[in-house]
Amino acid sequence: MSSQAATNQMNGAESLVHTLLNSGVDTCFANPGTSEMHFVGALDRIPGMHCVLGLQENIVTGMADGYYRIARKPASTLLHCGPGLANGMGNLHNARRARAGIVNIVGDQATYHRPFDAPLTADTEGMARTVSHWVRTSTDVAEVGRDAAVAVQNARAVSGQISTLILPADASWNPGGVVADALPVPAAPPIDPHAVENVARVLRSNRNVLILLADQATLAPSQILAWRVAEATGAHLLATYTNGHMQRGRGRLALERVPYGTDAAIQALGQYQHIVLVNAKAPVGFFAYPGKPSTQYPSNAQIHVLSRFDQDSVAALQALVDELGAPEVAIPDVGPRPEPARGATTQENLAVTLAALMPENSIVSNESISYGRDFYKLTHNAPAHDWLNLGGGAIGDGLPVSTGAAVAGGGDRRVISLQADGSAMYSLQSLWTQAREKLPCTTILLNNRKYNILIGEYKNVGAVPGPTAMGMLDLSNPDLDWIKLANGMGVEAARATTMEECADLMQQSFRQKAPFLIDLII
Amino acid sequence: MSSQAATNQMNGAESLVHTLLNSGVDTCFANPGTSEMHFVGALDRIPGMHCVLGLQENIVTGMADGYYRIARKPASTLLHCGPGLANGMGNLHNARRARAGIVNIVGDQATYHRPFDAPLTADTEGMARTVSHWVRTSTDVAEVGRDAAVAVQNARAVSGQISTLILPADASWNPGGVVADALPVPAAPPIDPHAVENVARVLRSNRNVLILLADQATLAPSQILAWRVAEATGAHLLATYTNGHMQRGRGRLALERVPYGTDAAIQALGQYQHIVLVNAKAPVGFFAYPGKPSTQYPSNAQIHVLSRFDQDSVAALQALVDELGAPEVAIPDVGPRPEPARGATTQENLAVTLAALMPENSIVSNESISYGRDFYKLTHNAPAHDWLNLGGGAIGDGLPVSTGAAVAGGGDRRVISLQADGSAMYSLQSLWTQAREKLPCTTILLNNRKYNILIGEYKNVGAVPGPTAMGMLDLSNPDLDWIKLANGMGVEAARATTMEECADLMQQSFRQKAPFLIDLII
Repeated sequence: MSSQAATNQMNGAESLVHTLLNSGVDTCFANPGTSEMHFVGALDRIPGMHCVLGLQENIVTGMADGYYRIARKPASTLLHCGPGLANGMGNLHNARRARAGIVNIVGDQATYHRPFDAPLTADTEGMARTVSHWVRTSTDVAEVGRDAAVAVQNARAVSGQISTLILPADASWNPGGVVADALPVPAAPPIDPHAVENVARVLRSNRNVLILLADQATLAPSQILAWRVAEATGAHLLATYTNGHMQRGRGRLALERVPYGTDAAIQALGQYQHIVLVNAKAPVGFFAYPGKPSTQYPSNAQIHVLSRFDQDSVAALQALVDELGAPEVAIPDVGPRPEPARGATTQENLAVTLAALMPENSIVSNESISYGRDFYKLTHNAPAHDWLNLGGGAIGDGLPVSTGAAVAGGGDRRVISLQADGSAMYSLQSLWTQAREKLPCTTILLNNRKYNILIGEYKNVGAVPGPTAMGMLDLSNPDLDWIKLANGMGVEAARATTMEECADLMQQSFRQKAPFLIDLII
Repeated sequence: MSSQAATNQMNGAESLVHTLLNSGVDTCFANPGTSEMHFVGALDRIPGMHCVLGLQENIVTGMADGYYRIARKPASTLLHCGPGLANGMGNLHNARRARAGIVNIVGDQATYHRPFDAPLTADTEGMARTVSHWVRTSTDVAEVGRDAAVAVQNARAVSGQISTLILPADASWNPGGVVADALPVPAAPPIDPHAVENVARVLRSNRNVLILLADQATLAPSQILAWRVAEATGAHLLATYTNGHMQRGRGRLALERVPYGTDAAIQALGQYQHIVLVNAKAPVGFFAYPGKPSTQYPSNAQIHVLSRFDQDSVAALQALVDELGAPEVAIPDVGPRPEPARGATTQENLAVTLAALMPENSIVSNESISYGRDFYKLTHNAPAHDWLNLGGGAIGDGLPVSTGAAVAGGGDRRVISLQADGSAMYSLQSLWTQAREKLPCTTILLNNRKYNILIGEYKNVGAVPGPTAMGMLDLSNPDLDWIKLANGMGVEAARATTMEECADLMQQSFRQKAPFLIDLII
């Protein structure tokens, strides 16, 4: 539809839906309320938007995050007033850290009603700013379409951004909506040729160089270029610990990550006197600990920026390949696919079985926390797959991210959640959306009945937890029954206490175009 | 412990726990993370704090809200970094609207680690300000105790306030903590004698006067005084629609509320030319609707403020009684306790059965939304009880508020949740805490398998929902199985399809010192 059409008979909500569709946003993760009913009405009348309901807002925003990581384009959310946005902010934090683009549509009080401070009135803009790159309140119906186009444009930056468009109810229901055309996707800032020359010089003249990759630089197109650089110069490659989306398995680089733990990270990085950053930050600890440094690299190491997070890592690495004249090389074979493991449900056995059985082109959503620290390094020899990590450390994104990723996968790609029990409880409502949308999601619920990471952290602090501390760290008393919880939301589930049982259930689940939960007792 | 003791050997977390206890805060609703481990350690070593674990932060903050409403004093929360606070902000919004006092303790990155922008680093203060009356980051270990005392002091204002104390990890673990003594509870601003004289004059010289009560003015001590004024002057009494905590049933005033719906509210208030506000705001719509006014009272009505929300309603009403010389009168009898209803699970039958069966001194947490609009007016003739409403319209506070209220009730008071299914899904994790703490909570789950309020609102917008709209408004496909969900979290549950079954289950539940969920098909 052109910008001229239907200007007068259209309301703001309708101009918004048409503009989102024009701009390539065709999926809306929704948890609507009263002030959004005109938007819901517009979605009802205008075909083309796939609407997916989440039963709590952190599910909605987490799904939008997972969708972006796989679709590599933004979905919209639909949230109800400031408190609805607040409920979704934890996973917007994760999405921001994962550099996912999202267009939040937050309905709000009518402009003229806001001064009356009705119960749901809140500092919606203030809330939005804490997790968004771009925030605007459309106070005039004629501006809603234009504002929506700008929101999408910002979300679609090379490094995805969180756009939050606040839509007062009267801007939604008033006539006079104007549909906007799509705006061009912003170009990434160009690669600095001096940075390329400098990095080439460092690589030519030093042996102890680390090339550190993050975010898009961990995807397949960057991997092959980074490997050419490494092979030509002898530099080492590592990925940062936290990357929202990595591509790995057969045909991809077996790219190790900087370890999570401060001591292990410092040890892994201790040998490098030069660190080249490709869309990465110089590594710092997830948390500080008494007497340990915040930074994980040697204090005398030199840091060289090849490309920033908002630049195109492929362009940067290609320029470096060209500068070095690095020849084409093959990605090393990741080794034979293993056989499924047998026996005890250990971390290693589960990783091996996962590598043995996961279908080609699967998506793994990893929120395995303490139990899963080795899953990553033991699954390089799986078939080609996408690997999604907890983006910003705010637990509770594993299940919603997997759900949104499955929507982006169009029902054809198997999604496997490696999901700790404690973090699953933050967003278990995701299972209902998986059932409703008949998504091919297999949740491997790692059931240890405690916040095990915190028990480890408590011991780091120097003591064995007493009764009061354990009252805040253990999840038994009562035990959570994940079979019943999954069944209660329409998801088939079964328990596994051995790797044989787990492998059988994985194979059964992988054949079904429906969600399944394996309650794995560990 | 005195302020002088143990200054040097104590860390910041220990000074915080001692200060909270000194200040009368002896209950901590917690969802801790790594940066809070020293605080957890201090809670482990220092006796006296009752720690209650919630599995998601909105449960934690909602429990603290419910606790305050019954205990009439603040609890603390323990939350993990900005995103943990964000997860709990929806119910902090509700608590703020319910005028509940809460002391949030939010652990955060060590001060020197914050500039490194580790994954969990967020705009914690910015988030906190959107829902808090008072926010401070304790950057120096020596100030933690003093800051905590000020936080409690602010939370304990006559109109409860949200205090958020952000505790960087190093302020927690460093030695040099100083315990602070309790600070005096702030006095309410005094009642203006001219306001009292003016209201007395209005009441003496007019017949069409409404006295509108809100918040503490709806509790029993204010009710008897307001009733004396009404009897002496012929004024009418109403409560505002939204009050976090009301006291009612036998021995209390059968105080009606301004209706929720705009048209009904305008009709109810249309006869008044004078409205006297006792801790109340002049009524406005929950939402605006096209062509309808924002305010619900006649445009020519005169508004008279007897007392503001932050003043003492008992003092204000006593002054008015004295000024008028209003004689002592008895609260009218609320009529005989009804017999349990039989047959269909209608709104009226459930309300009557509730009035018939609820134990004396029960607490009712009402998040019944669309189905429960008449529960309130049909339960005046129940035994004396406390009635807790959704404070700020952000659905998802019913179950956590009931859980926190049960903790405040010390296990002796029956808590009954009138809980819509859609809103229950926002915070179902509450059931697990109910089971863990063996709380006497009876949840009557009103199972209609849809967001019925939104279907009504959609029809208000002028249309019958089509498939896309219904995809965002109905909760079937798949149906939620609340028996399994409750059992999965350790809560006994059973289904009722008739009032006889419901009454039997209520009686069974009321005998048990444990939670129970009745899945009431409506």
